[in-house]
Amino acid sequence: METDVIVIGAGGGGYPGAFRLARSGYKVVIIDPKGELGGNCLFSGCIPSKTVREIAQMVWRNNRILKSNLKPDFSVIQDHKDRVQEIRYMQHREELKEFRDNIELIRGKAKLIDNKTVEVEIENGIIEVKGRYLIIATGSEPVKPKFPGSEFAITSDDLYGYRTPLRRLPDDITIVGGGYIALETATILKALGYNVRLLVRSDKVLKGFESELVNTLLPLLGLEIMYNSPILEIKKIGEQEFEVFYSDGKGNKKSLKTGLVMLATGRKPVLPEGAGGILALDSKGHISVNDSMKTNLPNVFATGDVNGKAPYFHAAVRMSIAAAYNIMSNSTPMDYVDFKSIPVTIFTIPPASYVGIMPSEAERMGISFIEASYELKNDPMAQIYDEMGGVLKLYFERGSLRLIGAWIVGVHAGFVINELGQAVAHGLTARDLAEFADQHPTTNELIAYTARKVL
Amino acid sequence: METDVIVIGAGGGGYPGAFRLARSGYKVVIIDPKGELGGNCLFSGCIPSKTVREIAQMVWRNNRILKSNLKPDFSVIQDHKDRVQEIRYMQHREELKEFRDNIELIRGKAKLIDNKTVEVEIENGIIEVKGRYLIIATGSEPVKPKFPGSEFAITSDDLYGYRTPLRRLPDDITIVGGGYIALETATILKALGYNVRLLVRSDKVLKGFESELVNTLLPLLGLEIMYNSPILEIKKIGEQEFEVFYSDGKGNKKSLKTGLVMLATGRKPVLPEGAGGILALDSKGHISVNDSMKTNLPNVFATGDVNGKAPYFHAAVRMSIAAAYNIMSNSTPMDYVDFKSIPVTIFTIPPASYVGIMPSEAERMGISFIEASYELKNDPMAQIYDEMGGVLKLYFERGSLRLIGAWIVGVHAGFVINELGQAVAHGLTARDLAEFADQHPTTNELIAYTARKVL
Amino acid sequence: METDVIVIGAGGGGYPGAFRLARSGYKVVIIDPKGELGGNCLFSGCIPSKTVREIAQMVWRNNRILKSNLKPDFSVIQDHKDRVQEIRYMQHREELKEFRDNIELIRGKAKLIDNKTVEVEIENGIIEVKGRYLIIATGSEPVKPKFPGSEFAITSDDLYGYRTPLRRLPDDITIVGGGYIALETATILKALGYNVRLLVRSDKVLKGFESELVNTLLPLLGLEIMYNSPILEIKKIGEQEFEVFYSDGKGNKKSLKTGLVMLATGRKPVLPEGAGGILALDSKGHISVNDSMKTNLPNVFATGDVNGKAPYFHAAVRMSIAAAYNIMSNSTPMDYVDFKSIPVTIFTIPPASYVGIMPSEAERMGISFIEASYELKNDPMAQIYDEMGGVLKLYFERGSLRLIGAWIVGVHAGFVINELGQAVAHGLTARDLAEFADQHPTTNELIAYTARKVL
Amino acid sequence: METDVIVIGAGGGGYPGAFRLARSGYKVVIIDPKGELGGNCLFSGCIPSKTVREIAQMVWRNNRILKSNLKPDFSVIQDHKDRVQEIRYMQHREELKEFRDNIELIRGKAKLIDNKTVEVEIENGIIEVKGRYLIIATGSEPVKPKFPGSEFAITSDDLYGYRTPLRRLPDDITIVGGGYIALETATILKALGYNVRLLVRSDKVLKGFESELVNTLLPLLGLEIMYNSPILEIKKIGEQEFEVFYSDGKGNKKSLKTGLVMLATGRKPVLPEGAGGILALDSKGHISVNDSMKTNLPNVFATGDVNGKAPYFHAAVRMSIAAAYNIMSNSTPMDYVDFKSIPVTIFTIPPASYVGIMPSEAERMGISFIEASYELKNDPMAQIYDEMGGVLKLYFERGSLRLIGAWIVGVHAGFVINELGQAVAHGLTARDLAEFADQHPTTNELIAYTARKVL
Repeated sequence: METDVIVIGAGGGGYPGAFRLARSGYKVVIIDPKGELGGNCLFSGCIPSKTVREIAQMVWRNNRILKSNLKPDFSVIQDHKDRVQEIRYMQHREELKEFRDNIELIRGKAKLIDNKTVEVEIENGIIEVKGRYLIIATGSEPVKPKFPGSEFAITSDDLYGYRTPLRRLPDDITIVGGGYIALETATILKALGYNVRLLVRSDKVLKGFESELVNTLLPLLGLEIMYNSPILEIKKIGEQEFEVFYSDGKGNKKSLKTGLVMLATGRKPVLPEGAGGILALDSKGHISVNDSMKTNLPNVFATGDVNGKAPYFHAAVRMSIAAAYNIMSNSTPMDYVDFKSIPVTIFTIPPASYVGIMPSEAERMGISFIEASYELKNDPMAQIYDEMGGVLKLYFERGSLRLIGAWIVGVHAGFVINELGQAVAHGLTARDLAEFADQHPTTNELIAYTARKVL
Repeated sequence: METDVIVIGAGGGGYPGAFRLARSGYKVVIIDPKGELGGNCLFSGCIPSKTVREIAQMVWRNNRILKSNLKPDFSVIQDHKDRVQEIRYMQHREELKEFRDNIELIRGKAKLIDNKTVEVEIENGIIEVKGRYLIIATGSEPVKPKFPGSEFAITSDDLYGYRTPLRRLPDDITIVGGGYIALETATILKALGYNVRLLVRSDKVLKGFESELVNTLLPLLGLEIMYNSPILEIKKIGEQEFEVFYSDGKGNKKSLKTGLVMLATGRKPVLPEGAGGILALDSKGHISVNDSMKTNLPNVFATGDVNGKAPYFHAAVRMSIAAAYNIMSNSTPMDYVDFKSIPVTIFTIPPASYVGIMPSEAERMGISFIEASYELKNDPMAQIYDEMGGVLKLYFERGSLRLIGAWIVGVHAGFVINELGQAVAHGLTARDLAEFADQHPTTNELIAYTARKVL
Repeated sequence: METDVIVIGAGGGGYPGAFRLARSGYKVVIIDPKGELGGNCLFSGCIPSKTVREIAQMVWRNNRILKSNLKPDFSVIQDHKDRVQEIRYMQHREELKEFRDNIELIRGKAKLIDNKTVEVEIENGIIEVKGRYLIIATGSEPVKPKFPGSEFAITSDDLYGYRTPLRRLPDDITIVGGGYIALETATILKALGYNVRLLVRSDKVLKGFESELVNTLLPLLGLEIMYNSPILEIKKIGEQEFEVFYSDGKGNKKSLKTGLVMLATGRKPVLPEGAGGILALDSKGHISVNDSMKTNLPNVFATGDVNGKAPYFHAAVRMSIAAAYNIMSNSTPMDYVDFKSIPVTIFTIPPASYVGIMPSEAERMGISFIEASYELKNDPMAQIYDEMGGVLKLYFERGSLRLIGAWIVGVHAGFVINELGQAVAHGLTARDLAEFADQHPTTNELIAYTARKVL
Repeated sequence: METDVIVIGAGGGGYPGAFRLARSGYKVVIIDPKGELGGNCLFSGCIPSKTVREIAQMVWRNNRILKSNLKPDFSVIQDHKDRVQEIRYMQHREELKEFRDNIELIRGKAKLIDNKTVEVEIENGIIEVKGRYLIIATGSEPVKPKFPGSEFAITSDDLYGYRTPLRRLPDDITIVGGGYIALETATILKALGYNVRLLVRSDKVLKGFESELVNTLLPLLGLEIMYNSPILEIKKIGEQEFEVFYSDGKGNKKSLKTGLVMLATGRKPVLPEGAGGILALDSKGHISVNDSMKTNLPNVFATGDVNGKAPYFHAAVRMSIAAAYNIMSNSTPMDYVDFKSIPVTIFTIPPASYVGIMPSEAERMGISFIEASYELKNDPMAQIYDEMGGVLKLYFERGSLRLIGAWIVGVHAGFVINELGQAVAHGLTARDLAEFADQHPTTNELIAYTARKVL
């Protein structure tokens, strides 16, 4: 079987580029074990987790503002989540139909033979696909550490997976890990009324996030976090009852009882078979690429989580499109991904977002900047929702006043960061931001209010 | 009493400029009949109406998604609204304290004597204030038409006013008017479970909005709108029961029964006494200004609703700041307001927003453009909230691909429009938008998806 | 013979796109009757005319500033011109060598058979070339009107052509026409000490240029222009002596004696044989294209003078590149030419340039703007060269202060317009221009000086 | 005597801000020992040196291209230079007249008493001036080192000063120094036919310039540079004949004979009397300021060469304006100078320019970039002038493709750098540059040609 472009992986790093290429007449074969578009983001990642999160936040707000006492059955929320996932799967099937002349989606497992050849193990055999170009977008999966009783623990895949059997939750839940998935899930479940605690290996959560942002966010989350508490063992002691053993940091083995243990201890790249031998990898096992998404092999691109550059769906989409354009120019790069200006949000309740260069990095680089900040307690939207915690911080390069970075903790952070990201991406200045009249009353108004402080 | 700058009106057109001037050491006297900062926006306008709206939308979403049956007592919502207003009044008092050395707020009614002199009628007498510069920011108020029984009708001030006595609503409500306040209020009350209808004088609602936007929005609102039905008379026929007479457009007088009539038939500028004689006005009675906010009188500026340029709080704030800078440069203009790039949102449920040049105007001007659009039914957030109606439309100037205008109907419109407005304000192009990776999953993602259609 | 892309015409509309495509691995066949790259711009257009112009200006400046009395033999100038042309031909041959694997240049005359087939008449026969895409870049040529004795007149091709036999000029020269070629040539020859006059059919020169620009430029040129004087006949009355008959506008036939008559009465598109039947043309015979350079035929593009959109070499290059990208995306447009922001210069001595929307058009469109201007008499460079005539005018959109158009008459106009063009192309504002410190002392400094007038 | 603003120094750091303030009604007193506007730039700096340079270049070009043999009398060039200076002095007097109601220019020497008081020694006494704000713009002057016979050497002030007695030059000239003034003057005099050599203390010239730029420029200048040759002594051995002793780097004292010695060994700030005691200075004796031009004293600003930030006239003008705006906002900064995007040009023949972050600094900061370059030998203008040496280099930030720095060596460098500087200042990208069609044939065309290499 011959084609122009082979895309391994039908998630955010895969299908957007495939669509773009198909639109310009390229023949594309997409290979994915699920046989559906959407990847893990749709199957068990951002879409289902954010669905549950939005419902949780809505319920929590209702309870706070109207003093109601809603505690919806978790299965109702899961049903809604499955419905949202189903709608998107249907949408993607429609999209595929539109491109039926140019895109073929094969359900199967891809094995890399060389930079132009892929073997696919399908239901009833093996087929060989040859293409002039190759995009590897095989994504990532949760790391599931092994320790005594680890088989009793779930991962985020079990909680958020499409049509997951997990429809009911015990009252007490323990989450192992201190990354963004751990914290998001903890606040979501807390908002729904569950008793949640975090077991964190080190003395820190959200490593890699700017510490001032983390220090602003954490008190607002109200989470029970047990630091320096690596997990040692899980013992099943009853129906939905477990004893979790951990070290207390001084070498003492301690335990606690809980109804469910979720491991959220990081994600690792998923490489197609055969990739390891011929593709250059980075120290963490990601496929090495440059900013035009090229690997070390001619005409082979790697996009999305598998390259480890920015493991977010929106970043994967951007990379996928970039790979498509660079295929259209026959691997002479004509599109580059600006990783610096991709926003990152942790969808806790309340959420936190950042984009651009954070002050610690700016200092390291010797970039001189002016800082301006605004407390969300003065934001009408924060007041309306009675979620008045949080801060917006803007960092402007000295002289040019160009916005080089920004973060926001608090209500609507995930929305506000888009406008800030556009500003970082396209060199807008404090004055540009100050002169624009954001819609009242939206939290984006704070952007101009903050920018005006330096003018 | 002498000062540098007199500001008449303590709303969005007044206090931001006063603060900016005070920050640079100017002495400012603000005169306002309420004796508080915030103007009508805070007292009975955007803040309370959006508070009620957000609660209504939350309840409605809860009911739809979780199949609950909430119908909170209206007084609970009004209590929350009053609390939000109170928080803001307290915030403004704190802000005033910070500027106490430079700003004096006088509760009173201002009368314009000349371009440097204002007489203020205060509680116990009259004082004269003289200043080198004058900013008139006296705002606007609802038009209350007179007809038999009009005294039985309320206006938005009665519904949204701070500590309004209106704490309970009858089941059936009739709103007279087809402007944005009428439609917003209608959808808010409908979301809270009230039976609402609109009586509209002509065959159209939302005059001045692009017709394609209106035609996209209206079916999503599900409102009962009676077109060509000018109101003639209201008769009180019981406790919270009224008969409303209207013409059916063919000259027949008809009537309907309802529990409450709200008049939302437009707003008119509020001019300070004495202004009419010396200030140039436009055909609708607004104070004429240019884009640096100067009136016909030397050193006199007019900002906010009173000049009729863009009767929105965020626009008023921008104008107020512009006036402040132009005072700092002694009326030699150095700041100009770009009215074209100020976003406008109608906060119905769902909302609709636009910014920039709409296609009908572009065609009139002979600006050649490319249009791209995206249906919200494919937006994850729209899917999560099961509010899948709506469309995003982007208009790019041919050749430059600069975004010249955009509108969006549907979930999160009011947030998405900010990023689009920044793009319009600062000349971002389809490529700029396409290359930015908006946070997933936020409705802003549609911006890049739509922009990519032309690339 | 089969290829990916056929390019007809090796000038500015042809070879840049061919190079871009070759760089991405496309096979390209270029067909050109000269068998060399560069087209008419290099053979007899901008390159030789600007070479002669720069020399003429240098001589003229020397004479003015140092009170010298240079009058170089015209053949010395022509020799230098030929040398510059030769250098560029050699350069182009080197460039072709670099792309030898992908580009074949055929010397011959192309005939269009269909949208994928071209017949080429070469020295010893006819060959057929088939390609998937076609770029027509056949350029334009001088209109040579027919009237009694018109065979005695030369055109710009005779004056500027590569290795033209015209190496000496008589003292008195008559140029027929009032377009930019007529005026440029007139001032060049005048600067070299020749006696020049212009015979212009109507009461105007430089039609299509903004009238304020023309009115500023003309007095600085000091040309003898005979308006309303259509040429009727040329009689040869001696060796390098002619009598030129013209109408004086009142129906009287008049005559004058001159040593040389040059016709500069416009240019017309050169269409390949066969094009007329299948390609849509505009009212003046140009091939109709949209802003992505597509013609009415699938996969056929037309670039450069032949489409009449912007008959300048730099515009042709931009169009050629756009066609290349649009071929790379298989005719799904991904690149568009912004004709509005392409600068135009008339290289008279002194020169004049403009870019963007001129005030007369802005008024027609209803675009409100602020104007700011600066006289070149205050420019250090103008003072240094004692060429103090001229004006810079900037037009800023009201509100946004975006530069929408600009023109400059005077020393270095052709250089200054580039910075202004970038500003127009990318939406820079008066403030952006005012905040940049242009290199002192260059005429570009006036840009910031002028922009500051509105701030 | 009382005023709003006292400006000490009437050069580029002084008068532009004074004009801006006057335009907004501020009363300004300017104090300058020359009693004329223009400072050293006009009196003995950029204006006269660039006048001589342009004439020298013109003569040199004439001689090369037309094989002429011009060697104008130096006094003719000096006469022209004086005339240009006179024109500008007259222009400034006219400008002052326009502002006569607001600006008073006092000829005298200022002594700083405190941050609001200046004593001025005028022709016939001392006056005290009091102001609310103070701008110190006292500029810089050549360092004149002392060694035996140093009194026989001239400085650039003697060569370029207004109405300088130096009207004739000997055939052989020795310039001591390796900075930009030394190199500029050397190439100017060389172009005029003089025999010039440079005596340079160390093994390097143009310290502070990027070494790749210097290495590209130096071979094109064809200068005789004696490195590691500190000057020891000058002996006068005849009428316009001197013996110059220097160390040869190995401790040997050597000598050479020459007709004129010019010292160009750097410049130092000129501080007003009294400044040293109260104003914070940097390690080289400049007045310390931040990017809003504020010194350590309240309401005291320092602009231009005296603060050592960017000792160029165009930078001084920008700083002066910034100080003016910051005075208008009462020292609450609202304008900041972006030193990073100020272009720098060395006006040798050929010239060299740069702007933004140079690669060595980008590497130091950890900014990842893509480089693209173009040789001027392919530039039509370089070909026309037969000055085909030189290179253009562009540095784009990886990912964003924003232009972060650029340099150009060769013909028209000083013009081309303006467009590049605007791009650096306002965040334009490789794509922005590539899509713009610079005027043909100007050297700016190379910008797009170079940018296209990465797309």
